[in-house]
Parts: sequence; structure tokens; C-alpha cells
Amino acid sequence: MLLPFEIHARDPGSRARAGKLGTAHGPVLTPVFMAVGTRATVTGLDPFDLAQLGAPVVLGNTYHLMLRPGAEAFRRVGGIHRFMGYSGPVLTDSGGYQIFSLADDRTLSEEGAMFRSYVDGRRLLLSPERSIEIQTAIGSDIMMVLDECIDSTSSSAATRAAMERTHRWALRSLRARENPAQALFAIVQGGLLPDLRRASAAFLTAHPFDGFAIGGLAVGDTRAEREDVTSASAELLPDARPRYLMGVGTPPDLLHAMLAGVDMFDCVLPTHLAWQGTAFTSTGRVKLTRGSCASADVPLDANCGCNTCQRFSRAYLNHLFKCSEPLGPRLVSLHNLHHYFTLMREARAAILAGTFAAYARAKLDAIDRHEHSGRRLGPATTSLDGREPG
Amino acid sequence: MLLPFEIHARDPGSRARAGKLGTAHGPVLTPVFMAVGTRATVTGLDPFDLAQLGAPVVLGNTYHLMLRPGAEAFRRVGGIHRFMGYSGPVLTDSGGYQIFSLADDRTLSEEGAMFRSYVDGRRLLLSPERSIEIQTAIGSDIMMVLDECIDSTSSSAATRAAMERTHRWALRSLRARENPAQALFAIVQGGLLPDLRRASAAFLTAHPFDGFAIGGLAVGDTRAEREDVTSASAELLPDARPRYLMGVGTPPDLLHAMLAGVDMFDCVLPTHLAWQGTAFTSTGRVKLTRGSCASADVPLDANCGCNTCQRFSRAYLNHLFKCSEPLGPRLVSLHNLHHYFTLMREARAAILAGTFAAYARAKLDAIDRHEHSGRRLGPATTSLDGREPG
Repeated sequence: MLLPFEIHARDPGSRARAGKLGTAHGPVLTPVFMAVGTRATVTGLDPFDLAQLGAPVVLGNTYHLMLRPGAEAFRRVGGIHRFMGYSGPVLTDSGGYQIFSLADDRTLSEEGAMFRSYVDGRRLLLSPERSIEIQTAIGSDIMMVLDECIDSTSSSAATRAAMERTHRWALRSLRARENPAQALFAIVQGGLLPDLRRASAAFLTAHPFDGFAIGGLAVGDTRAEREDVTSASAELLPDARPRYLMGVGTPPDLLHAMLAGVDMFDCVLPTHLAWQGTAFTSTGRVKLTRGSCASADVPLDANCGCNTCQRFSRAYLNHLFKCSEPLGPRLVSLHNLHHYFTLMREARAAILAGTFAAYARAKLDAIDRHEHSGRRLGPATTSLDGREPG
Repeated sequence: MLLPFEIHARDPGSRARAGKLGTAHGPVLTPVFMAVGTRATVTGLDPFDLAQLGAPVVLGNTYHLMLRPGAEAFRRVGGIHRFMGYSGPVLTDSGGYQIFSLADDRTLSEEGAMFRSYVDGRRLLLSPERSIEIQTAIGSDIMMVLDECIDSTSSSAATRAAMERTHRWALRSLRARENPAQALFAIVQGGLLPDLRRASAAFLTAHPFDGFAIGGLAVGDTRAEREDVTSASAELLPDARPRYLMGVGTPPDLLHAMLAGVDMFDCVLPTHLAWQGTAFTSTGRVKLTRGSCASADVPLDANCGCNTCQRFSRAYLNHLFKCSEPLGPRLVSLHNLHHYFTLMREARAAILAGTFAAYARAKLDAIDRHEHSGRRLGPATTSLDGREPG
């Protein structure tokens, strides 16, 4: 039986849809942004904070969790929910992207990836079967197949070879699955080449995966390329199954992908940028370490209802960052995640109301305007990748 | 008019007393442990966390706050309460100890201390008048006079000279006070020399200070010396005024000082040790980074009611510290402060019940037993000083 997924509404002006996933740890309304909790913690926040924020899903990472605390730690207590004191839905990425990011420090073969543990220097194998075995121990509600990621600017031959191996690994992952209560998503690859994306979607959707992810983006591609591939790929995926765009992205990335019919997202940006002192606001990004914030006795975002904006000023946040006080990144992480979750709630409401196309266009225009006028605050897009490396 | 202070009960078996301070930001039940918030933040915690913990007072530091964010930041918004979004009582230390800790990087004269700002390299003067001026801008409920701290192993002549200067500076501070709603405490000095301690208490208590602190301890002295001086000094201070032991200490230090009639305490230990992965528990200190914690699927302290102990295991905390995840120090800070506040609440209840001497003795025995049996966990006392340096 596949992961329950129902569609509640479709936007008449775009391919956006609003729905619900039925995971083993409760329902998840879509479209959904998942908070990145690579090492069984969303950096600096605990499950109570996540509940306060209304965070719908936490995303853990198989590569990092197999190294620390190790699969045995999860087996002992019966999974990540007990381990991290969190009772909501968890998705685990397979480790494919992290293996890719290790570059020269791993060897790839048909069997899997051999790499050296950063914890104790041991050489370890991450194969499709091993990834599923670890994800089974972790007990995530949604598992991902191990995929072979490559740079999106790779040659056509290399992109095809990685895609074909990803397909073989996806089938091995499906065969290795032990617990039917844990959903399994496949990952469409094929780089920036439309033919390969089509072939990948055709191959994978012929098999009983619970959902389909679009992988291999935000790895060297431009925003325009990302939007084109996302849009084309989403259209190739079955209407009845959830679609997940991995590791992407900025609020404009999310709006574009929702217009194309994508249901699920994750990205490290809101928390990573928070640790660097950058906040997403209704009037563009704000770099809190800038001198102009030091005397700004105003909320971080006057239009935001989060605790950080209700209770603290830009001047106080600037002070915390200048002093390297960990309360600064924590308060901005809470704000940035609230900003993302609010965007997703508004988007879902607009889809239900049948006004999403207009909502997204207005939002994209506003962001474009703010990031244009705020040019001196730094580039509108970031070189920081949306996925956490190995 | 002096800071309201009433005594509710006295322990028949010791000099311990339970009372209440009436500050401009609400009542404070004594004996009280104050959370150290040097830079207008208790590291990693926000005022909501402090309210959840029942933290009675936050302790800021004039030296650090004059450098960042600077007095002007407080003047602009009307004080530290608005600045840090906190509405409870605040005590500010004067900066005397921080100037002392700068050692060779400052010059002391009768006027005050000249030192170089770590923010912008400017040379600055911290005089008694300037300290009061800054504390007035900060708007703390209780201000401290600038004192001259010296190593407790200094010569008798040097100790006397520093004490006499501390007295002159105390009177200058009293004259410099601008806002009568902000209480002002003097600081008894005199090192480990009983005659000097007696002279210092006699001099200072002849002037209308709101309370009296015992300074110059936890700076090179042993636990036995600290207990002797604390006990003798507390006896020299007026019964009707609050007594504050600065920068001390471990739970046994607090119990001994309460037996001697001390009402107020602060120490960086619970938060500093938390950032190093050490927790205070009902069965002794626990170093969470130790390998034995990695597979301990049990609460940090089975006898503790704090959120950390109710919701997370030692194994999870070990994992967070091994990964350098900031949630680890945050959860242990919350626990360690809860441990201290619980000790103070129990102590106050025992004083009200007239059973404090027996309570303190049993508690001291238990701690001694745990720290003896847990010898391999490290020394029972710490080399880490209880006050935050400059």
C-alpha cells in the first residue's frame, strides 16, 4: 500500500495543488517546507520550538546519522523519534548528495560509495541496501533511495551514466525495503538535459515508489535553469503521487516550483543564513551584523508575527551577533523558519482559494523589487548550496 | 529611602534567613541565585526561557556593556529591560572584577582604571562616577560600586591599599548616584585578612548603601578560606540589609554561605560548565562528552523535573555535544540553572520550615559522597573562576 496522498484543491491558474500526506507520525498538509535537521536536530532548536513554529516535518540525513550516533543508537531506542524526543513526521535523505560532495575523498562503484568516516577514519560502504538498512533503523516516515548526484554542468554521457546507475540503485532500494510503514521515494536525475529527465521520470514512475523527488539541482545551475528543469520534471511525474524538489531553495524558487506542481521542499538556507546573521523579511533580506542595525530600535520585520519580531529589536539582534552570543542565531533561525512556514501557509490558502497564480506573481514581484532596491545587502541568490554537504 | 528588604524567617540552627527584596521590577525572594547575563543575554537563553525556569534576577556587567552595545544604546530605549525584552529585576556588576582580570593591560589610579576597548582599541576610563553613569543608563534595579579587586594571595599592604581605595570609590559612587529608584550596593574587600574584612565592613556599613556584597573571593583562594572569610564577613554586615556573595560558587559554596546568613549569589558555573558539556545532577557532576554517555538511554538526572530531563536522554545530549550542535549547551544550561534554582527554592522552604541546618548538612554530605565516588569525573571544585573576566 502506497503512502496515503490526497489532493484537496488545484489552482486554476497554474499547476499548483494543495493536498495531504498521511505519514506514520501524522498528516502533513502540502505544499510543505521541511526543516533541515541533518544530525537529528534542527540547529539550536528543540522539538518544543518546532511545535511552536508549526514545523510540519523534520529532515534527517542518513550519511551524517550513520556516522554519528550510528544506526545502533536508533535501534536501541526504536528510532529517531524517541532518540530526539520528537513525535512528528521525519523524512531522511539517503546520503547520495553528501557522498557526491565528498568529491575526491570517496570511490564510487556499481556496489555503492566507499568513503572514510570523519568520526574514526574507518572506510565505510554506503550502498543502496545499506542506506535503506540505516533508514530502517532510523525509523523515518519517508525514506529516500540512494542516488548518484553529479554536477549539473557534467557532460551528457556522464549525466546519463549517473542517471542509469540511479535507476538501478532505486530498484535495489525498493527490493531492500523492510518496513512497509516507511514510505520510499525515488529521485529523478538527468541534469539539465530534458531528454534524460524524461527518460528518468518514465523509468522510475513505472515502479511502486510512494513519491518522486527531483534531484540534482542547486548544484551549479542558474536560477533560470533550475526553474526550467523543475517545471519540466514536475510535469512528467504522476499526478497522484507527491513531488519533492530536493535542497531548493529561496522563497522565489519555492513559488516557482509550487506553480509547477511541486508539493514538498527542504533547504538549509533559513537556518544556515540565520547563523550568518541574515534574516528573510517582508521587505527583503536583512544582514543583522551591518552597522545600520546597531541603532535600529525596531522589530526585525514589522510585518511578522513571530516571537523574535514581537519581542526583540534589530539593535538587540545586532548586539547579540557582534558579541557572538548564540541567542542571536537562535532567534533569527526561529524567525527565518517562521518566514518560510508563513509563505507555505499563505500559498496553501491561496491554492485552496483558487488564487495562487496571482498570489505567487505578486509575491515574486515584491521580492524582486526588495532584492533589487536592497542590492547593497548582497546578492539576491546565494552561493550557499541548499543541501548540507558530507 | 533604602531598597525594601524584609526578613520572613530565620533558621534556628544557623544564621540562614529567608526574605524578600522589593526591586523596581518586582519582588525577589531570598536567598536568591542570580543568572549571569553579562552581555544582556544569559548565553543561549531568552527572557521567555528565564521565565519558564523561574529565574528571579539577571546579572549584567557594566564593563562589557559599556563596550557593547555602549551606554547610548540603553539611553535610546530607556534601559536594559527594553533592550533585551525582559521585565524582571536586573543587577549590574560595576566592572571592578573585569578591570582586575585585564592584569597588565590597564593602569589603575585614584581616578579609576584606564584600559583599551576590545571593540575599537580606544583607551577608556572606568571610574566610580563613570560606572554609576553607565549603570544609570543601563537602568539596572541594583547597581554595584566600582571596587578594586586584587588576588586574594596579595600582600597585606597591597590588600589594605586596595581596600582603602575601594572605600573611597564607594563614597564617590554614592555621591554620583542619580536615580534613587536604582539601589546601590557596596562591596566589602580585605582579602583573606580578618582585620581588614572587619575594617572594611565597619567603614562601609556606616554609609547608606542598600545592601552589602562580599567581594574578592573565588580569585585564588581555597574552598576552606572562602568559607571562613564568607562566614566571618557575613556576621559583620547589618542584619537588616541584604548580603551578596559575589561570583561564588558551587552548590556546596552556596549552602555554606546560606548557613552564614548570605542572601544573594551569582556565578557563571552553571552556564559555563553547560557549554563545556558538564551537568550538575542529584548524583554528582556528569560530563556528557564521555563515551559512557553515548549509549545511556536514560534521563540526564532521573530525579530532575526540568524539560531537558523530562524529554531527552544522556545519549542524545552526548550526540549533540559530539556534533558540536548548539542545542546541547542550551539544553544543559537550562538543566543546570534549574538545578541551581531548585536548590535555592528547597533552601528557602527549609529556612521557612526551620529545618535548614539539617537540610544543608544532608545536602553537603550527599554532594561530598557523589563527588568522592565520582572522582574519575574530575575534581569536585573547578579552576574556572565564578566571575566573567574582562
